[in-house]
Amino acid sequence: MTDTIPRTSSVQDAIETRRSIRRFVQEPLDQSDLREILRLASLAPSANNVQPWRFAVVQNPTLQADLQAASYNQLQVTNAPAVIMLYADMEDVLASAEETLHPNMADEEKRTRAQRLRSSFEPQSVAERAAWANAQANIALGYLLIAARGLGYDTVPMLGFEPEKVRALLGLPEHVQITAIVPLGRRAEEGFPHHRHSVQRLTTFY
Amino acid sequence: MTDTIPRTSSVQDAIETRRSIRRFVQEPLDQSDLREILRLASLAPSANNVQPWRFAVVQNPTLQADLQAASYNQLQVTNAPAVIMLYADMEDVLASAEETLHPNMADEEKRTRAQRLRSSFEPQSVAERAAWANAQANIALGYLLIAARGLGYDTVPMLGFEPEKVRALLGLPEHVQITAIVPLGRRAEEGFPHHRHSVQRLTTFY
Repeated sequence: MTDTIPRTSSVQDAIETRRSIRRFVQEPLDQSDLREILRLASLAPSANNVQPWRFAVVQNPTLQADLQAASYNQLQVTNAPAVIMLYADMEDVLASAEETLHPNMADEEKRTRAQRLRSSFEPQSVAERAAWANAQANIALGYLLIAARGLGYDTVPMLGFEPEKVRALLGLPEHVQITAIVPLGRRAEEGFPHHRHSVQRLTTFY
Repeated sequence: MTDTIPRTSSVQDAIETRRSIRRFVQEPLDQSDLREILRLASLAPSANNVQPWRFAVVQNPTLQADLQAASYNQLQVTNAPAVIMLYADMEDVLASAEETLHPNMADEEKRTRAQRLRSSFEPQSVAERAAWANAQANIALGYLLIAARGLGYDTVPMLGFEPEKVRALLGLPEHVQITAIVPLGRRAEEGFPHHRHSVQRLTTFY
C-alpha cells in the first residue's frame, strides 16, 4: 500500500486520511521532512506561550528495540523508521521562561513576567505542574499528527509504555512527563476507518 | 483586514497562518462550516478511542456577555460570532463506553471491553480521571484550531476563566473539566507573529 496523498494536502484531507498506522515502509525518513514536521508541531499555541513540549527522536534500531521492550513489545516501535517521544518539561520551562517572551520586550519587563510565571507555579508540586504541562503538550501532539499526515507521513500515538524505563533509556530526568510515543513513517497498511461520536452527540448549541 | 487564505489551505499554510485573534468580522458564522470544524476536531485520536471531548457552542450575545464576565472580561468572548467551550466529560465516557467501540464488534466483546475500561479507571477519583480526560481533550483542541484555520476561520484558545461560573452558566455538571474557551470567527486584525523555540532547542536526536 503506497501513500498517494499529495505533500500539499488540505487540512480536511490530512485529518480525514490520518489513521493509526503500525506497519511502515522500510526506508529511512527524509530528514528535512522530519524537521519540518517538528517545526510545524512546535507552532502549537500554549498558555502564556510556555511551549512545554520537547522531542526525543530515535532513529536507531538498537535503541528502538529497547524502547519496544519498554512499550509492552508493541511492534510498531521497531517497524517505524523513526520514533518521536513527545514529552513535557515544566522545570525547563520555569528555568528558561525568559526565552519564551517576545524578543522585542524590554529586559526588565521580561524579568518581571518570567518571575510572575514562576511565582504562579510555585504553590504546585513538581508532579502537579508536570501534569498541567502534559495537558498543554497534547495540543502539540494534535499538531504533530496532522503535520505528519499533511506531509504524506503516518503515525500512531501510543500511551502504552513504562515511563520509568523510557526515561532511563533516553537519559531524561524524572520530572518530565511523557505525553506520547509516536512512531513515524510511510504507511504499509491501510489502518482502520474512523469510528467516532457524531457532532450531534458531542455538541450542545446555546 | 480580510482573510485571504483559500478554504482548501494546506496543513502547512493553516499552521503557519494561525494566530491568536481577538477581534473578529461582525457577521454570523456559516453554520455548516461550524459543524464541519467540530466534525474535523472530533476525528482526533484518543487512548482506547474514548473521545472524552464535548462541545458547548454559544452564539447568543446575552450568554456571551455572561461568559465574558466569567472570563476576566476578555473582550473577544463577545466580539466573536461564536464561542466554543471544549470540555472533557470522563463520567459520560465511562457511562457510555459501549458507544465508542467498533460497531462490527460482537455485543459480548463490547460489554467485556467496556467493563475493562470502567475497571481501569475505578481506582482513580473523579477529579483524577477528569484531569486525564482533559489532557486527551487537548489533542482535539489542536485539531480544532487547525481545522478552523483550514476552513479560513480564526480562533484564540483561552484558559483564563472561572470554571465554576462557566459550568453554572452552561448548566454543565461539576465533574466536567473545561479544556479551553475558543472564540471563533473571521479575523479583523493581524494578530502577532509566532515566537517559538527552535526545533534544535526542543529536540534531542538519538
